[in-house]
Amino acid sequence: MSSFLPQSIRALIDEFSRLPGVGPKSAQRLVMHLLHAPDSRVQELSKAVGGLKAGLQFCSVCWNIAEEEKCQICLNAEMGLRQAKQICVVEEILDVVALEKTSEYKGVYHVLHGALSPVDGIGPEQLKIQALIERVKGFSDSDEVGAIDLEVILATNPGLEGESTALYVMKLLGPLNVNVTRIARGLPVGGDLDYADELTLTRALQGRAAYQ
Amino acid sequence: MSSFLPQSIRALIDEFSRLPGVGPKSAQRLVMHLLHAPDSRVQELSKAVGGLKAGLQFCSVCWNIAEEEKCQICLNAEMGLRQAKQICVVEEILDVVALEKTSEYKGVYHVLHGALSPVDGIGPEQLKIQALIERVKGFSDSDEVGAIDLEVILATNPGLEGESTALYVMKLLGPLNVNVTRIARGLPVGGDLDYADELTLTRALQGRAAYQ
Repeated sequence: MSSFLPQSIRALIDEFSRLPGVGPKSAQRLVMHLLHAPDSRVQELSKAVGGLKAGLQFCSVCWNIAEEEKCQICLNAEMGLRQAKQICVVEEILDVVALEKTSEYKGVYHVLHGALSPVDGIGPEQLKIQALIERVKGFSDSDEVGAIDLEVILATNPGLEGESTALYVMKLLGPLNVNVTRIARGLPVGGDLDYADELTLTRALQGRAAYQ
Repeated sequence: MSSFLPQSIRALIDEFSRLPGVGPKSAQRLVMHLLHAPDSRVQELSKAVGGLKAGLQFCSVCWNIAEEEKCQICLNAEMGLRQAKQICVVEEILDVVALEKTSEYKGVYHVLHGALSPVDGIGPEQLKIQALIERVKGFSDSDEVGAIDLEVILATNPGLEGESTALYVMKLLGPLNVNVTRIARGLPVGGDLDYADELTLTRALQGRAAYQ
């Protein structure tokens, strides 16, 4: 980076460059944009960044992000507004955001905060897998919900890491006598059979269902 | 955006989305990244954003960004470390950064802060064109540097807006009896004649020089 640039500019380019998906070039552009923006907007951004984690914690039930001890979704489930007997297991908080957008799912979630990846040194103990097992076990002990009624939907990504995570979780859940399902893998809506890879086509064939 | 997300997260996604080249999706990813980052790093970013403009101003000579009244490049020129008789006119501060990286140019700069663009309502009065004319006129008055010695290099972008800006500036500089040049337009190094557009090829032919 050119040394003639003032220190405060170089510091911010540096900070932006460390964000994922932001290269040194985009970092420069962002800083130049902020330089030309009104100071009030720059201060707003600074405040929003600084206040991001204030009062935030992970939900004690599902490990989603929460402002209180439990997240809004789990609180809704306690009030009977959502089905507590359906647990959708996802890798990241953003997956919850994506699923919530469909307005299709009315159950609760469990955020693993990652997927198994031996290459990156991420094993089961780095993920919230044990917490999920404990949570499911809690259901079978309580009289409120019979264990047989509980559905655990494995909604990890359909890639190598997501699949092995799903497999691992499934094996742990096996002895607990709960209903474990996996989200369908197949052709995306609007997708083209001609352009789909072999694995997706194989999955689409394997996952075929009665035509309605 | 999902309403179950805490307010502080939504606020930051909102702020990030307003940055150029950052869509709502990348904004979400950036925020999730920061959520998992150590708090010290988040606070560093907040501080870097908040302190960006502290003590910054535009150089009173060339309108580059500066920590003092004059930028480092103009100060170096005053000390005789750079040629004050060569003024490279660019659109943005980042163009100065790009040119400085070549280590080829030893003159000074003039940052217009944009290019003429009637569609976006950007006319000559929005740019630092008048400041450039005054600056050049100042040279012809002073005894130090003869007007005939001064070279103004028009290094605006070789697109529609940059070209019309260069043309406009050139016409204003004409009566001042200075040497006005334009950066070469042609095939980029590593470029392919076969893939070049007609205009670039035309410029490359027009700008041909004796083979050395």
